[in-house]
Amino acid sequence: MRAEGGNVHSDVLDTSLAILLRDAADLILAGIGRARDAVVKRAVEHKRTPIIGRSHGIHAEPTTFGWKLLAWADELSRARERVERARAAIAHGKLSGAVGTFAHLSPRIEEAAMVSLGLSAEPVSTQIVQRDRHAEYFSALALVGASIEKFAVEIRHLQRTEVREAEEPFGKGQKGSSAMPHKRNPILSENLSGLARLLRGYAVSAMEDVALWHERDISHSSVERVIGPDATVTLDFMLHRFAGLVEGLRVYPERMRENLEATRGLIFSQSVLLKLIERGMERQAAYVVVQRNAMKVWDEGKEFRTLLADDPDVKKLLTPQDLDAAFEMDHQLRHVDAAFERVLGR
Amino acid sequence: MRAEGGNVHSDVLDTSLAILLRDAADLILAGIGRARDAVVKRAVEHKRTPIIGRSHGIHAEPTTFGWKLLAWADELSRARERVERARAAIAHGKLSGAVGTFAHLSPRIEEAAMVSLGLSAEPVSTQIVQRDRHAEYFSALALVGASIEKFAVEIRHLQRTEVREAEEPFGKGQKGSSAMPHKRNPILSENLSGLARLLRGYAVSAMEDVALWHERDISHSSVERVIGPDATVTLDFMLHRFAGLVEGLRVYPERMRENLEATRGLIFSQSVLLKLIERGMERQAAYVVVQRNAMKVWDEGKEFRTLLADDPDVKKLLTPQDLDAAFEMDHQLRHVDAAFERVLGR
Amino acid sequence: MRAEGGNVHSDVLDTSLAILLRDAADLILAGIGRARDAVVKRAVEHKRTPIIGRSHGIHAEPTTFGWKLLAWADELSRARERVERARAAIAHGKLSGAVGTFAHLSPRIEEAAMVSLGLSAEPVSTQIVQRDRHAEYFSALALVGASIEKFAVEIRHLQRTEVREAEEPFGKGQKGSSAMPHKRNPILSENLSGLARLLRGYAVSAMEDVALWHERDISHSSVERVIGPDATVTLDFMLHRFAGLVEGLRVYPERMRENLEATRGLIFSQSVLLKLIERGMERQAAYVVVQRNAMKVWDEGKEFRTLLADDPDVKKLLTPQDLDAAFEMDHQLRHVDAAFERVLGR
Amino acid sequence: MRAEGGNVHSDVLDTSLAILLRDAADLILAGIGRARDAVVKRAVEHKRTPIIGRSHGIHAEPTTFGWKLLAWADELSRARERVERARAAIAHGKLSGAVGTFAHLSPRIEEAAMVSLGLSAEPVSTQIVQRDRHAEYFSALALVGASIEKFAVEIRHLQRTEVREAEEPFGKGQKGSSAMPHKRNPILSENLSGLARLLRGYAVSAMEDVALWHERDISHSSVERVIGPDATVTLDFMLHRFAGLVEGLRVYPERMRENLEATRGLIFSQSVLLKLIERGMERQAAYVVVQRNAMKVWDEGKEFRTLLADDPDVKKLLTPQDLDAAFEMDHQLRHVDAAFERVLGR
Repeated sequence: MRAEGGNVHSDVLDTSLAILLRDAADLILAGIGRARDAVVKRAVEHKRTPIIGRSHGIHAEPTTFGWKLLAWADELSRARERVERARAAIAHGKLSGAVGTFAHLSPRIEEAAMVSLGLSAEPVSTQIVQRDRHAEYFSALALVGASIEKFAVEIRHLQRTEVREAEEPFGKGQKGSSAMPHKRNPILSENLSGLARLLRGYAVSAMEDVALWHERDISHSSVERVIGPDATVTLDFMLHRFAGLVEGLRVYPERMRENLEATRGLIFSQSVLLKLIERGMERQAAYVVVQRNAMKVWDEGKEFRTLLADDPDVKKLLTPQDLDAAFEMDHQLRHVDAAFERVLGR
Repeated sequence: MRAEGGNVHSDVLDTSLAILLRDAADLILAGIGRARDAVVKRAVEHKRTPIIGRSHGIHAEPTTFGWKLLAWADELSRARERVERARAAIAHGKLSGAVGTFAHLSPRIEEAAMVSLGLSAEPVSTQIVQRDRHAEYFSALALVGASIEKFAVEIRHLQRTEVREAEEPFGKGQKGSSAMPHKRNPILSENLSGLARLLRGYAVSAMEDVALWHERDISHSSVERVIGPDATVTLDFMLHRFAGLVEGLRVYPERMRENLEATRGLIFSQSVLLKLIERGMERQAAYVVVQRNAMKVWDEGKEFRTLLADDPDVKKLLTPQDLDAAFEMDHQLRHVDAAFERVLGR
Repeated sequence: MRAEGGNVHSDVLDTSLAILLRDAADLILAGIGRARDAVVKRAVEHKRTPIIGRSHGIHAEPTTFGWKLLAWADELSRARERVERARAAIAHGKLSGAVGTFAHLSPRIEEAAMVSLGLSAEPVSTQIVQRDRHAEYFSALALVGASIEKFAVEIRHLQRTEVREAEEPFGKGQKGSSAMPHKRNPILSENLSGLARLLRGYAVSAMEDVALWHERDISHSSVERVIGPDATVTLDFMLHRFAGLVEGLRVYPERMRENLEATRGLIFSQSVLLKLIERGMERQAAYVVVQRNAMKVWDEGKEFRTLLADDPDVKKLLTPQDLDAAFEMDHQLRHVDAAFERVLGR
Repeated sequence: MRAEGGNVHSDVLDTSLAILLRDAADLILAGIGRARDAVVKRAVEHKRTPIIGRSHGIHAEPTTFGWKLLAWADELSRARERVERARAAIAHGKLSGAVGTFAHLSPRIEEAAMVSLGLSAEPVSTQIVQRDRHAEYFSALALVGASIEKFAVEIRHLQRTEVREAEEPFGKGQKGSSAMPHKRNPILSENLSGLARLLRGYAVSAMEDVALWHERDISHSSVERVIGPDATVTLDFMLHRFAGLVEGLRVYPERMRENLEATRGLIFSQSVLLKLIERGMERQAAYVVVQRNAMKVWDEGKEFRTLLADDPDVKKLLTPQDLDAAFEMDHQLRHVDAAFERVLGR
């Protein structure tokens, strides 16, 4: 953290930084690529593996495990685009002198030099390349981190004792908790969750670097010396840890099936609701009927379908065949091919 | 967001702000008091209600639901101390003139005026009261928010479909999800989780307000006009929403008991481990023995105690009475009184 | 801050939010357009108005006031691109149902509905549009804010009593400081500096909204209800305040000229250095010669050119004509047309 | 960034962290002490060195350079108190086992162990010491950093070419800018400004660590492994760099005097205003009279006192002796002893 003076010409420093961050972006992009490949592979593998979809942590309607991963793949595509744009933003150098006026060199020399380095010339610089470029860069890294965090939180949820639908890779010889030999903890995902917080902090610091004084002050430099390596190394590490985690993720379709059935058919309540409306019941009335039976499932431990079949208001409108149809999971998942087609083109 | 000029004397503005934030702190403190009272009441009520303790989202060892709440009560005591200190820090006014030199009034008049307003005089001011005081204040609010968020996240976890150990208050006539009539969502806790994020953002803005130019620049003012009301109103709202939530929280001890038993005795694995070590087995060897049986519980669905009773290495060292003792939950929870004594003095 | 439940279908809510933020982005883009127009106009007006370039707050070499503004115009072009991309990112709605599986509607209906609303369909949604889109949006706003802050800090510096090269518009009847009638304070720019801090805080909150639970939890909603309006209104206000400020900015070329001359020729020290090197002196030796004379300017208050003309080491290599050339400001600014050509195409 | 499992017992890890951060706090406190000593020494030295007080970057009324430093000393006292409290908050260890229930050890053993380590026992822990303590700690560091940043920004302003009232220590053999031999840049202060941004980012990350899952998840650990050393080392470095900077700061009282006189008496405008009001003129009318003459000082380059002496409205109420009194700087600074007495007790 030695203070920097004018001992090395700022043109060289800023252009070097552009090269370093551009090349770091290439590593990050490779990491995103690996992570997305792993996610796509497992998505295709589990395209038709049913799992309960949850909103608010509460069982909602069925989806498939592959569908969850498909959303990740799409989000990683957006991550890639953001980093590609941030890479383009950062890949600008300068050779315009002490205040950006080309007082002792011509713009053409700058352009030629930048071409030779694979950079663009900052169209108009001061003593430095403008720092909104760097702030965009570190913000883009933080956004990728936030996506990884989202995926990690999902895995942590799926590995909960009560859920147990998936588990992080766990080597044969590997010990679990030192104190509690029965435990297998999602420590890789927890680690990723924490690292995402670091990236957010770095982005905050980088955004404060934009408003420098006049043609430059060097306050940004102590920030960049730390977050330049720290943010890129952290995200690179995260992407590969995440990719390895996805590649080796243990998926338990049977357990997913058990959880789907744990609420005794309640997950089809919307289907029943819509069916009742379709047959002419007012939405408000249908809602009351469905909720009344749903609460009995909780309170009395009975099957939802059985309760509905016995409900006089339901019987008036729905046949047993209608109820069968409403409780048909394959019907609910019939658009999975269309979804994969949209995102993966297949 | 009208720009402020020198139209109103900064002495008056800054002293008014001190009064406003001090009085807001009193409301916050009242909210913390109500929240802590609610938490303590439920803690005492559920002092001996067993619940599985979880680390990494994985079942670990038993604790009690009251014990969880006891930790919240203690954290709220720390929250109260922080806000009390922040209140003291912020309750400083000034009447020292344009650059803090008392050019046209004497320090004694300032002191008398501050006494009459229930404030302290800023020992040495510039045109303004120094902004590290305000940054401490908004950081303290963000820290309280982070604690509320922690409690909210716990409730959200407990209300998960697979866990269902507690639920937010849910009025009789209240509808759940509009689309899925069976759902009861922890929306109050989710709301609290989000609001905590706002408070963190406000704290960041406040910290940037410290480094003003010379004897003052007015850049802090546009920030304070927004976060002054927004942060205090948000936290006040959070505290009362949280208090009401705790007061009305539905607790399901039977479900807690079911979850305790869901891992077929695995939660006593550390007790068994320690018992084996106590009887002379090497820690490393004991660990292997216990983990071997623990894995069979997962894989074969048998009871942990049964498996251990059949394991030759265990049988050599532990009698059935020893195993009984290791699987004794009351023994594990024997220090609950001491814990309550520590925090509540009772 | 009323808690949100499932009373309104999340498809409608999320799609409405997409429309609101997309339309807000259009207003922001209009504000950027107005601001950039104002900046370009003043840049062209002051293309050849010399002003000292400063690094570290210290006089460096001459630039022009228009050149400073040209850098702002280019930065605002980048701001526009970022907001355009963020607008595209956010303009995604959904009609895919409770967990994104189109259980009760087909993807085609979603696509048709989105087209009719001028939105794109989220390629793969859960209960909601994914929140990395929103985080990108609010980060983009914070980045624009950071650029405005940079411009505001420049104006505040230029209006300093000791610099006085420019002043914010100041109406005839307008009073300055209430206590000190002689003062004209850069309160609009200071206000902008503070507002940028708010936007950074909002971006932090938005980034924390990405990692929701499973197919959604609603914790993001309380954040968005606050920062949605607050961030967009704040930035919209900032852009128009900034544009008005630039349009009416009072520029004092004579004062700029005085400041250029205040260091008695020192700003040409690099030219002299390079000229000595050109004539065969070692860089290190040349540096010593130039610095020796530069220090005398500070210590003895003499003109740099006079001191150099009397220095035996200089005399050996440079003729009076050489010195004249080194002290020629027009030469230093000879590339201003090329710079404008690069950025404005003229 | 190796992932942490339960391989090492969390009691040991958390207690070790308490020791590390407590001891780091002692180093920070020593740094604050050194910095405050340096500031107090220079404050006393320059107690009566007049300098213009500036608000909004505009000359306001006179103060003394020592008075500026006195405010820093007081702020550093607050910094010390915050770090002392944060030290107390963090100096809590635990030996309460896997979920904080003392299942295998008694609370008394914990208490004895903590006493022997110079720590307190966390009154009620889960698997870990609660993270609001750590968040308070890192927030306190960020607040100290923000204060250092404020001081650094002041020095940067004072060293500006146009102000030149103080300069960072500058060694004899030291070179300035590599390109511009005449420059002496405030690079130490700029460095400090940047480092403060890092500390804010770290505080954001730490605040996100509070809301862990149930009795603990380990996501906080990857954050703390980075910010634990990084934040403490950064602030320690800042404090000593700042102390050295203050110890060696070059102060230019003559230049301060020149700047005081640069506005030709305008800094006494409030004195004149109050004198006119004292003699019976309406405030509004007096304001108009004073501003009218103040504007002439700017526009015509005349002395304020001369203009006032010629103004018929002034002449009616004020004698030349009255004007002399209004322009008396010593009178304006008469309370400097009282201010030092308040803060330093002398």
